[in-house]
Amino acid sequence: MAEYLAWLAPIAAVIGLVVAAYLAFWVLKQDAGNDRMKHLSGLIQKGGRAFLLAEYRALIIFALIVAVVLGVAITPLTAAAFLTGGILSVVAGYIGMYVATRANARTTQAATTGIAAALRVAYRSGITMGLVVASLGLMGLSLWAIFFLIFAQHPEPEIVDGFVMGASSIALFARVGGGIYTKAADVGADLVGKVEAGIPEDDPRNPGVIADNVGDNVGDVAGMGADLYESYAGAILAPMVLAVAMGINGILHGSDAVVSLVLPLVLAAGGIIASIIGLFAVNTNDSSKIHKALNRGTNLTSVLVFVLIAGMCFFWQSVSDAGLPALWFFLSAAAGLAAGLAIGKITEYYTSYHHKPVKKIADASESGSATNISEGLSTGMLSTVMPALVLVAAVVIAYLAGTQVGGPELGVYGIGLAALGMLTTTATTVGVDAYGPVADNAGGIAEMAGLPPEIRERTDQLDSVGNTTAAVAKGFAVSSAALTALALFVAFKVNLEAHIELNITLDNPFVIIGVIIGAMMPFFFGAMTMGAVSRAANAMIIEIRRQFREIKGLLAGEPGVEPDTEACVRISTKAALREMMLPGILAVLIPPVLGLIDVNILAGFLIGVLACGFLMSVYMANAGGAWDNAKKFIETGAHGGKGSEAHKAAVVGDTVGDPFKDTSGPSINILIKVVTVVSLVFVPFFIAQDGGLLHNIF
Amino acid sequence: MAEYLAWLAPIAAVIGLVVAAYLAFWVLKQDAGNDRMKHLSGLIQKGGRAFLLAEYRALIIFALIVAVVLGVAITPLTAAAFLTGGILSVVAGYIGMYVATRANARTTQAATTGIAAALRVAYRSGITMGLVVASLGLMGLSLWAIFFLIFAQHPEPEIVDGFVMGASSIALFARVGGGIYTKAADVGADLVGKVEAGIPEDDPRNPGVIADNVGDNVGDVAGMGADLYESYAGAILAPMVLAVAMGINGILHGSDAVVSLVLPLVLAAGGIIASIIGLFAVNTNDSSKIHKALNRGTNLTSVLVFVLIAGMCFFWQSVSDAGLPALWFFLSAAAGLAAGLAIGKITEYYTSYHHKPVKKIADASESGSATNISEGLSTGMLSTVMPALVLVAAVVIAYLAGTQVGGPELGVYGIGLAALGMLTTTATTVGVDAYGPVADNAGGIAEMAGLPPEIRERTDQLDSVGNTTAAVAKGFAVSSAALTALALFVAFKVNLEAHIELNITLDNPFVIIGVIIGAMMPFFFGAMTMGAVSRAANAMIIEIRRQFREIKGLLAGEPGVEPDTEACVRISTKAALREMMLPGILAVLIPPVLGLIDVNILAGFLIGVLACGFLMSVYMANAGGAWDNAKKFIETGAHGGKGSEAHKAAVVGDTVGDPFKDTSGPSINILIKVVTVVSLVFVPFFIAQDGGLLHNIF
Repeated sequence: MAEYLAWLAPIAAVIGLVVAAYLAFWVLKQDAGNDRMKHLSGLIQKGGRAFLLAEYRALIIFALIVAVVLGVAITPLTAAAFLTGGILSVVAGYIGMYVATRANARTTQAATTGIAAALRVAYRSGITMGLVVASLGLMGLSLWAIFFLIFAQHPEPEIVDGFVMGASSIALFARVGGGIYTKAADVGADLVGKVEAGIPEDDPRNPGVIADNVGDNVGDVAGMGADLYESYAGAILAPMVLAVAMGINGILHGSDAVVSLVLPLVLAAGGIIASIIGLFAVNTNDSSKIHKALNRGTNLTSVLVFVLIAGMCFFWQSVSDAGLPALWFFLSAAAGLAAGLAIGKITEYYTSYHHKPVKKIADASESGSATNISEGLSTGMLSTVMPALVLVAAVVIAYLAGTQVGGPELGVYGIGLAALGMLTTTATTVGVDAYGPVADNAGGIAEMAGLPPEIRERTDQLDSVGNTTAAVAKGFAVSSAALTALALFVAFKVNLEAHIELNITLDNPFVIIGVIIGAMMPFFFGAMTMGAVSRAANAMIIEIRRQFREIKGLLAGEPGVEPDTEACVRISTKAALREMMLPGILAVLIPPVLGLIDVNILAGFLIGVLACGFLMSVYMANAGGAWDNAKKFIETGAHGGKGSEAHKAAVVGDTVGDPFKDTSGPSINILIKVVTVVSLVFVPFFIAQDGGLLHNIF
Repeated sequence: MAEYLAWLAPIAAVIGLVVAAYLAFWVLKQDAGNDRMKHLSGLIQKGGRAFLLAEYRALIIFALIVAVVLGVAITPLTAAAFLTGGILSVVAGYIGMYVATRANARTTQAATTGIAAALRVAYRSGITMGLVVASLGLMGLSLWAIFFLIFAQHPEPEIVDGFVMGASSIALFARVGGGIYTKAADVGADLVGKVEAGIPEDDPRNPGVIADNVGDNVGDVAGMGADLYESYAGAILAPMVLAVAMGINGILHGSDAVVSLVLPLVLAAGGIIASIIGLFAVNTNDSSKIHKALNRGTNLTSVLVFVLIAGMCFFWQSVSDAGLPALWFFLSAAAGLAAGLAIGKITEYYTSYHHKPVKKIADASESGSATNISEGLSTGMLSTVMPALVLVAAVVIAYLAGTQVGGPELGVYGIGLAALGMLTTTATTVGVDAYGPVADNAGGIAEMAGLPPEIRERTDQLDSVGNTTAAVAKGFAVSSAALTALALFVAFKVNLEAHIELNITLDNPFVIIGVIIGAMMPFFFGAMTMGAVSRAANAMIIEIRRQFREIKGLLAGEPGVEPDTEACVRISTKAALREMMLPGILAVLIPPVLGLIDVNILAGFLIGVLACGFLMSVYMANAGGAWDNAKKFIETGAHGGKGSEAHKAAVVGDTVGDPFKDTSGPSINILIKVVTVVSLVFVPFFIAQDGGLLHNIF
């Protein structure tokens, strides 16, 4: 009877969507301010919508080609699941953007009455996105899983895998495209506006400012949402696929086989409900307590999830046919959640200006940009050490706890639960993250609309808290990516090994060359995305310079003279779409090609991408975050403050760090998952090819 | 009878040493110029000597502790071999430095008569170093191997491994210490002298210039020499250890077992003779043909080595008891040699200003230092792609060719031959590389001694060719490191598996966490070495500023007022010694500690370091080289030339790149080999511990 618990997942998803709808309508009912504010917000809405629609148009062709390939090489149902996964990602992104780009002016307007009101609007719009992402992900995945894993005569994981592959592919394009968009606009607007023309940030005369504001939404709302949507789906899927394999291999029977299969769905369902409850804990009237209020929401959600996990593990133990000590799994899941929190804290340590590393970068800025850059790069590299060790500790604990329940197979299942434990709070994590760009945009609108400075101060307070919570969210994103990929990798290997002989020991030269090629991918991705941002930023720079030169009276600020912001939006859109295609296609194409040569190479490749990608992603994200906050620290007045030589050096670091933290780092993060999920989906194809061309010759 | 061929190795080594002695005395007989030049050269000699002696004093304690540990945990003979390997490295470094720091003024003096004379002095001093490095390495290794592998009743590879571990440990300290020394002096002297005080490069008023010149020798002569000395020894050892294992396991018998064992020694012996012959091909009177003349030497050596390899493989085939088609091994060795040349060419493409990547960095410098840095970083990342693919191709070809001779074991032996094929020309490679700093120093002495500008022009021509050949040498160093480490890794695994059961399949979570920890090491090393250089450079900056402030008349250039160059030499020495200890000790300590936990973790760790380290090393070396040459390209007059805004931006890139290419990149390169060799040496210890604490519990 335990299998009927699986229905809790779609039910929780519906509840999540209802609450999201309620919050969205609540946000939209708020006052959007005066005409100028509405106009500015309208420009951002239009730009965001234009980008998303153009992006989706480009992706339809890609998705259809892949769907046809999947339909032929795997099964038509896999293709259908793939399309569902992609379409729901697109829908979540669109809804999130729709609300976020309307919440910005409303947050500005609410800030005129006080910080509590502003917080409420911004946070509720963020949590709308969070709930939509989690609910749609869970809804789609659980329905496919219910029909093809839980109530199926013969479970067909290769169908359900397709859903996650759809989610992953869209996530990669959304992250890469969004990352390029936002940084091209940001770097271009800053270099010409702030540095060359000497006008303040978010000045209405700057033609690139709207594109910059659109970019915040495109990158941090839609991009981050798609990223965690797919991590979430992947983390739920991985233990289920392992559970199916254990059922088939006879390692689990009866109630144990059933509970192991529905457990991930129940935990995810509970996570959504816990997030909704946690939402109501966020409320404050005291500006100094915003951070605390947000933390209260996250903490309450985490505690509820902990209780839920313990309860479910206890339930399993009490119904276990084989008398499994399933309560050990609580430790597995808790290790994941704790690792996510710890890596978030470490990220904060390395990227917040309240701590030594960022202060040292600010110090180094005094001797010029070269020392600022060197210090930032070495901080970024150093910041990988602790997260790697924490991740390793979580893997070991989750695995050993799982082996206490049963053999190594249940140990690996424990690793899957660790990833899931980390991601049960996805709705809250995304919500807290998506709140950041709304607050950022609200500040931009206050500036451009010429509102009194105290409004901007209030939105700035919201924004600065958002920067820290974003760092924590990044810690979650990257560690969950690594854990999820690890569990999916084992699923890949188990499914493959059921039909063909593998030789994935480390002394097989083909495995080693796979690891080397895999380790090379993050560098290749880093280079491609960095290059893309600099090309796109260059196009933006040329356009903004042209407008300052050709539009008479623009720089002088003559009344009635407006910049052509839409031209800049078009440039960012076009560049992002053009540049995202190659990295995206390569990530999806390389795994099947390698598998066609030899699946052992592919296995090595996946581990190479996982290990090196995790580190590169942390390195780039943290170096970028640290440079950003070193600049902000100097802007608080340290080392001579704004306009000093140290500040100029810090601006250089910040500019280098922008694509590091918002384009390359997050893209590599998704790369890790995409290559693994694609490999998993193509398992039946590899089996049909008998393990690849070289596999049978040598 | 074939086993007596092994004696060719010590004989060739003696011949190499005799030729080296002849060349050294020839160089020392040349005129060292006027008193001022002798004085300057004397300061450099004194600084270099002081550093080496201080370094060796610090290392004696380390070496003795390690020797005691080896004596207890492995065997006393392993400890003795370890000490021999270390001592011969130290001797080679000392002799090389002795000649190089005396050849500098002699090259300057020879340049007064013409470029051909200058080339002869500089190149002959470089080749002295090359021959000493190769001869001492081969001498030591071959004698240990002759007594404990070839003519031993029971071969004891764990003794001979100790020799290479000694070579590796010293190499790591020499590279890290030398890299920190040279860059602290370089960055410090440049920042205060060129940027702050506005005096030219190599100006005699700058107190840091002598330390900078010492640093060139310490880093590029002693450091590079120790690096290739240990790669060379490792590359000869790896196939021998594999051959021993094949003999024990009964895979090879009779003449095949013997030839497989002596082949590496014979090839290395032939390589030294070929290098001596190639040496006489380098001679020119035409300044535009220096590069061609050097290439002629390298090419002739390579052709001779090719013929030798083919001959030896043919010989094997003709005497093979089992009728092995051993000629296939020619393809294995040739694949290695070709890969080394190809990676050298690729390195040149990404780092020479005759090609697009560096020109693009120079272009990007026009919009400031941020774009210069971003472009350099992305060039460095992109430059990893082709070397990785070439390396992978070489591994596949070498392996597949080897499997044609026999089974997978002979395939892996083929990979070992590939590494050796690449390194047979070590004497020439080191010679061409060590010639660079001599030419560089010669230019500095010309400047400081106030010789006519045409002398400096001649030495500059020699120097600029040296930069390109250095890039090629780096390509060799990094690709040979990866191949050698791969072969040594297999030897590690084979020796271990003979006694304990391993589970190094990729789905073992302990293997995966090993890979993650291993992949983290290059980031950690990069951060430590970057941080060390910046701390040391800061100390140097403070001292140079102090001298400019406190020594009256120094900056004004009053006659008789001299800077206190020895104070700067002391600072570099102290900083280098202090900062090299932690990275060096960690590299030697971590493998036994991980192996004590679980040898499977250690196996994963080694592959993680290998893959990620190879890429990081290429990334950092090439980014640094590209920044350097982008600056030099602008100095030729492009983008406004010296003093332009673009030049200032390019100087920032060069300053960031200095520790990248001369400290961190090369250190990571050695790290790859050290961890593998240390693991190999500790195999008997791991066997005694039964595979580690966790190994038997789970």
